[in-house]
Amino acid sequence: MRAEVLAELRAIVGPQYVLDRLEDRICYSTDATWERAVPDVVVLPETTEQVSRILRLANREGIPVTPRGAGTGLSGGAVPVRGGIVLSLTRMNRILEIDRRNLLAVVQPGVVTGDLQQAVEAVGLFYPPDPASLRVSTIGGNIAENAGGPRCFKYGVTRDYVLGLEVVLATGEVLRTGARTVKSVTGYDLTRLLVGSEGTLGVVTEATLRLIPKPEHQATLMAVFSRLEEAGEAVSRIVAAGVVPASLEIIDQTALKVVEEFLQIGLPTEAEAVLLISVDGWREAVARQVERVAGACREAGAAAVEVARTPEEEAELWRARRSLNPAVTRLGPVKVGEDVAVPPAQVPEFLRRFQYLRQKYTGLPMVVYGHAGDGNLHPNVVVDPRRPGERERVEAWLAELARLALDLGGTLSGEHGIGTLKAPFLEWEVGPVGLQVMRAIKRALDPRGILNPGKMGLDEGPAGEVAGGGGT
Amino acid sequence: MRAEVLAELRAIVGPQYVLDRLEDRICYSTDATWERAVPDVVVLPETTEQVSRILRLANREGIPVTPRGAGTGLSGGAVPVRGGIVLSLTRMNRILEIDRRNLLAVVQPGVVTGDLQQAVEAVGLFYPPDPASLRVSTIGGNIAENAGGPRCFKYGVTRDYVLGLEVVLATGEVLRTGARTVKSVTGYDLTRLLVGSEGTLGVVTEATLRLIPKPEHQATLMAVFSRLEEAGEAVSRIVAAGVVPASLEIIDQTALKVVEEFLQIGLPTEAEAVLLISVDGWREAVARQVERVAGACREAGAAAVEVARTPEEEAELWRARRSLNPAVTRLGPVKVGEDVAVPPAQVPEFLRRFQYLRQKYTGLPMVVYGHAGDGNLHPNVVVDPRRPGERERVEAWLAELARLALDLGGTLSGEHGIGTLKAPFLEWEVGPVGLQVMRAIKRALDPRGILNPGKMGLDEGPAGEVAGGGGT
Repeated sequence: MRAEVLAELRAIVGPQYVLDRLEDRICYSTDATWERAVPDVVVLPETTEQVSRILRLANREGIPVTPRGAGTGLSGGAVPVRGGIVLSLTRMNRILEIDRRNLLAVVQPGVVTGDLQQAVEAVGLFYPPDPASLRVSTIGGNIAENAGGPRCFKYGVTRDYVLGLEVVLATGEVLRTGARTVKSVTGYDLTRLLVGSEGTLGVVTEATLRLIPKPEHQATLMAVFSRLEEAGEAVSRIVAAGVVPASLEIIDQTALKVVEEFLQIGLPTEAEAVLLISVDGWREAVARQVERVAGACREAGAAAVEVARTPEEEAELWRARRSLNPAVTRLGPVKVGEDVAVPPAQVPEFLRRFQYLRQKYTGLPMVVYGHAGDGNLHPNVVVDPRRPGERERVEAWLAELARLALDLGGTLSGEHGIGTLKAPFLEWEVGPVGLQVMRAIKRALDPRGILNPGKMGLDEGPAGEVAGGGGT
Repeated sequence: MRAEVLAELRAIVGPQYVLDRLEDRICYSTDATWERAVPDVVVLPETTEQVSRILRLANREGIPVTPRGAGTGLSGGAVPVRGGIVLSLTRMNRILEIDRRNLLAVVQPGVVTGDLQQAVEAVGLFYPPDPASLRVSTIGGNIAENAGGPRCFKYGVTRDYVLGLEVVLATGEVLRTGARTVKSVTGYDLTRLLVGSEGTLGVVTEATLRLIPKPEHQATLMAVFSRLEEAGEAVSRIVAAGVVPASLEIIDQTALKVVEEFLQIGLPTEAEAVLLISVDGWREAVARQVERVAGACREAGAAAVEVARTPEEEAELWRARRSLNPAVTRLGPVKVGEDVAVPPAQVPEFLRRFQYLRQKYTGLPMVVYGHAGDGNLHPNVVVDPRRPGERERVEAWLAELARLALDLGGTLSGEHGIGTLKAPFLEWEVGPVGLQVMRAIKRALDPRGILNPGKMGLDEGPAGEVAGGGGT
């Protein structure tokens, strides 16, 4: 990076917030994937005005800018694959407002999701999206990837809780979208276009989020199934019984075994699948739902149904689910977490076909679990990328998973995004017309292609389709 | 329209589905507003392929195309202000699929919303969006305007129930967006960009809609308030009590008087406001919510609270609300229904300031009612456009209402859209940058500007900002 540009960046944010030593830059070279690229410089702005001046400079000079929150992303979204500037939004971490009467919060992008949840729950409100990373990940990153979580079956994803945004465009111009009302049909829905756009269309500097009243009560059930088909049947029967659980998680036998090895708490490892189901709402309604869910599971052939009615019992049931990540992580150096979604009735079929992949890729430890209610499954594989050919094998496995999900009427990503990892497959799902429309929008909003280039396959098309160029 | 073009249109859809006699064209010249423009021809396609061929032809010839459902719109969205082709989608009216296990329906755009609701309720499911026009209006029109309704306070608007779309672009290319899953973050969210885009970016030819289980039970309350402030206070207290009613409607004194004059059923016309509140869910939860809502209303100072527990009693309470439209309509030749939204806590302030408009525009009969829960208010004025100066007075009134809503942190339109009626005000809300981004997207997707030109102010900018031109 040219010294004049560095000097200009230092003048904008102050010298201590421009990091250009290699050891600092390496810290910003990756996210929670195996992807890695070292940026030329890391800049940590504190105000919208600073973000605007940085982007104006980058746009003038044609320097790539990769916005970044806490770096917990699982698709390579925050990895600066074309170098340039990593724009870390972690200093913009203030909750600006919690408006109880209008059920909304106004926050900066660097606010940690879990901190916001605690703050709103303290006044009886609720911000439902609950990505597994919520104790670390930021609202800005959640918005960029349209993050989900177990509770999204009932409550919807991040997109459903974003009322409006303040966004700095590639040109440095500041755009305000949306409104402080739930209903607003004033021109194109730029808010939802920006949610999930992975930092390729603008940098979020403020978000107005919708809140709801906190549910009065919650209960959790665990149902154990000897056969996978029975677990699938239970999901259908729960829905047919008119119940929308707050979460409806499935853990398959391989995942159970890995967790049991880790925790040694007597999990039913002979079961082909376990469902973990939480229901919430008014106290009396929770009782009704528990009854119906337990009934549906038993009718579907559950070998056992256990109900937790206190927070302590609930935490115990959720322990297996929450331990999946650490349990799988200890199996090898790198865990690759997949994130396809299929129509919920196809979950058993997906899991059956997944067995074929397990046999094909012997030697790659593999488990699968996920959100059965909305069909969002997380096959995980543990890899040692230093072993020759291992990375290529995993890439082939990712491609086969993508095909499998699409064959079953599903989608490439439920909640992690496309980033770099799934960019090669995007066109399989959205088709050439879809890709062409996305590229046209990208070019319209970011003509020089400076914002998070190299992501989602948006600037890597066939000749004639290439967007503005990343300035690298 | 040139004879060759007409002949080509006849070859595409069959001669009986190309209407070019004046008396037919006049039938397609307006919607539910006073806006009017006679198209050159009306075309009624039956398949996506036909829509594609029509748009290819129109794009080649630079002919404006205005898509149209049932014509119940309230912002001029379906009025062909630049002439050309009106594309009526009413023949594409089949429900293609109701998938109970995956909680979704696939429909053509001409399906009447009320018909879809009946079909899904017959199998225990629920499609919540409930615009007042639902017995006539179509899903395609609802999607174009992102329609709302009373139930949207709890359940969200049309946007929240669209999982995916098949859309014919201006070029005739067919785009498929979204997925058959609730979670999907695969590239830009083109689905939500298209919802509410008023037919300016593409023509919806198929929609995949999310369904939910039908709530078990419902109850309705009516609370009468001597003073407006008390009604506002009640809304805040209901929310603070953790209740999200399925609907929470407000009717002000002027509206009550008009309905009472019409129905003569002894409505409390001495009250400054009445709240009509429905709660739903599991039977026991409904009882709890009724208790809390009634308590909140009494604490806020309600003069009376009446609870309906049977469907018949409910229908009786809703009768006043449902009669508002016909009651107001009989006051004069044209009813102009406004549709601003403000943060819910600002509803009383909005209604107070509205009194000033009532005094300023004497001689224009005016009432106000709406969805207090989400702050979406419908001031209505009755007009005789033949009276000299009347139209200009109403346009000035519309502008003042827009300013008032924005001053209170609100939005120009909650559920009717921008169309032609509010196009002059769009920039007040979205700002020059917002308008510029919307125009850039419009140009990227419809370079010749053939799709519903003259709407939302997207092709009427200052010099240098004008989109492709309407071909007129």
